[in-house]
Amino acid sequence: MLTFSIEEYQERVTQTKQRMAVEGVDVLIITDPANMNYLSGYNAWSFYVHQALVVFIDESQPYWIGRGLDANAARHTTWLDEEHIHPYADNYIQSMVRHPMDFVCDLLKEHKREHKTIAVELDAYYFTAQCYLRLMNGLPNATIVDGTNLVNWIRIVKSDTEIDYIKKAAKISEKAMQVAFDTINKGVRECDVVAGISYAQISGMEEYGGDYPSIVPLLPTGKKTSACHLTWTDETFNEGSPVIIELAGCHNRYHSPLARTAVVGQPTQELTKLGEVVVEGLNEALDTVKPGVTCEEVEAAWHDSITKNGVEKESRIGYSTGLNYPPDWGEHTASLRPGDRTVLEPNMVFHMIPTIDLGYIGMEISESFRVTETGYEKLADFPQELHVKPNIRLA
Amino acid sequence: MLTFSIEEYQERVTQTKQRMAVEGVDVLIITDPANMNYLSGYNAWSFYVHQALVVFIDESQPYWIGRGLDANAARHTTWLDEEHIHPYADNYIQSMVRHPMDFVCDLLKEHKREHKTIAVELDAYYFTAQCYLRLMNGLPNATIVDGTNLVNWIRIVKSDTEIDYIKKAAKISEKAMQVAFDTINKGVRECDVVAGISYAQISGMEEYGGDYPSIVPLLPTGKKTSACHLTWTDETFNEGSPVIIELAGCHNRYHSPLARTAVVGQPTQELTKLGEVVVEGLNEALDTVKPGVTCEEVEAAWHDSITKNGVEKESRIGYSTGLNYPPDWGEHTASLRPGDRTVLEPNMVFHMIPTIDLGYIGMEISESFRVTETGYEKLADFPQELHVKPNIRLA
Repeated sequence: MLTFSIEEYQERVTQTKQRMAVEGVDVLIITDPANMNYLSGYNAWSFYVHQALVVFIDESQPYWIGRGLDANAARHTTWLDEEHIHPYADNYIQSMVRHPMDFVCDLLKEHKREHKTIAVELDAYYFTAQCYLRLMNGLPNATIVDGTNLVNWIRIVKSDTEIDYIKKAAKISEKAMQVAFDTINKGVRECDVVAGISYAQISGMEEYGGDYPSIVPLLPTGKKTSACHLTWTDETFNEGSPVIIELAGCHNRYHSPLARTAVVGQPTQELTKLGEVVVEGLNEALDTVKPGVTCEEVEAAWHDSITKNGVEKESRIGYSTGLNYPPDWGEHTASLRPGDRTVLEPNMVFHMIPTIDLGYIGMEISESFRVTETGYEKLADFPQELHVKPNIRLA
Repeated sequence: MLTFSIEEYQERVTQTKQRMAVEGVDVLIITDPANMNYLSGYNAWSFYVHQALVVFIDESQPYWIGRGLDANAARHTTWLDEEHIHPYADNYIQSMVRHPMDFVCDLLKEHKREHKTIAVELDAYYFTAQCYLRLMNGLPNATIVDGTNLVNWIRIVKSDTEIDYIKKAAKISEKAMQVAFDTINKGVRECDVVAGISYAQISGMEEYGGDYPSIVPLLPTGKKTSACHLTWTDETFNEGSPVIIELAGCHNRYHSPLARTAVVGQPTQELTKLGEVVVEGLNEALDTVKPGVTCEEVEAAWHDSITKNGVEKESRIGYSTGLNYPPDWGEHTASLRPGDRTVLEPNMVFHMIPTIDLGYIGMEISESFRVTETGYEKLADFPQELHVKPNIRLA
């Protein structure tokens, strides 16, 4: 069930160990499910219990640690041999006395690494404070340092196979957005529109299937468009109501996000103007993208564009994306925002999502793009405009 | 957009403060999205950035803390007044210098709580090690103690409105499982079956819509049925292949999970027998359920039943469920397993999922149930058997 060649996984481990060497790290404990997948292939919905991948700088295979009943998932989805699959007993689960990180401590002691410099992902999803305290307690002679985003920064430049998966995801995102546009209408329930989006996301294309995106479709409507992370309700769409649709296609855990705004019936002049401002700013920012440009320079083009149009906006306008698991499809590395001096390189992939929120109404029109040798390539091909749905269904 | 009365939220806060008093806690910092929702109503897909709800023992309203662009989501979904909604600036997001917990420290100092006993959810999702270290650093004079599961234990007994939502979710789970049974067939892709399940989950019923379950449909097939947390692929079903379907209905963030096993074509004798053993054990365990019985006594009935049938199994057979967010619909309190002496009370809700895994094949047939005054009530009404799909589609 490997989705990459063993050589590609091994190359990723080699890059990880090189970075560990630079940082003076002997052992890296990974709990971010995306990083676990990136190095080992591991892919199951088991991140609701503690699990880890442990990289020793002087060994070629990482160790998978997880719940006993997930060991077969590791056997099915990783390139690791049996000696590197270490399941813990079920009485470690949500126990008041035992913690899975105690089991990790035991593994490190068994391999005589308890005096080493050990990096952990201090601010990664699923690496709780208790994980940290248990490691500190169980390994009093270790030097524990921060390895947050160490693997994420390796993930930022994609291989050709990764780009292929992301492009496949982009086709799914187009299909899912089209379903949204086709079904949103006066009197239709929000939940029925999202059901259709989800069907398209998971079924995918005739040639290949879809995977679950790391974020469910977001669908704020009316005044709630100024609250962009709201999900749906079972209320029906009203005439004149704007709706933001943010979704992603996903294939083999790789994402291509896409956001658009639609309106049922005729938009107000204000909404139409807002759509034009966002599209203009989006494209002026996109047009700056090429290798050698920094993330903050891309954001500055957006900022100049909207300032010219009399709009202010504080939050970042984009982030690196690709492989991920819930709750996020962002990679937590480069952001398109002031102060981020990450230099763009070919095969970096970003979701540029420059929302404008006036407090009582919001607008999102986004693009996912790949940095090419000379500029950028849009991943999805979908009209960049406020989508007007004038043919309102007769009530 | 409140899904409960303000009085119900206030009662929950009162119960939380009573428990804080027993534990000697002055301030409780909550990051578990389910606990945040339970006390405030807050409901948005924003838990991919740091956010918190802060309860002061001597104040009636908790404080919501989150990203600036999510403040409107707090205004739309909570019962909190404007003074209790505290958004942080966007430059706290995934920053190397600022952390949202610094902002929490500032709030506590502003309210002169920096010398108090402060409980945090040390082992909750999204309370990372970095969150803890930033609080320790920012509040050197505070006494920081463990409040993991403090609110979860209040959630374990449901109100009548909560039970109503869970029953609505159970109807959705029946509908979604029926879609799975109707569509699984030789030559059909796994992803197309899951797409249909997801449509049913989100669309819900004619009278009310569905919400996103905290876990996507799990659908291991063939030998992979011994790896119960695998998701789907785009491969097609083969004749003779077993498939496990684990899913939940969800309404207003309340879940009713359901698992079944099906087989395309005629099952082997072994698979048929395994189905009978699981159904017998499931019902013998269910028949012990009533107020006053402990969780471990319920599991013992299952254990006796399968031992009689010559099967051994180590992991727990169930857990408390209800309100939740990804990545789990379990509540992390009571488990049906040896050593858990939690006493059953009316309006507790559990998912009993006694899987058997032979290493090369697995079987799951589950029930969600409510503890009643005298016994139990099954939440979904769905045939308890290995589902045989003999009418194989002609290839």
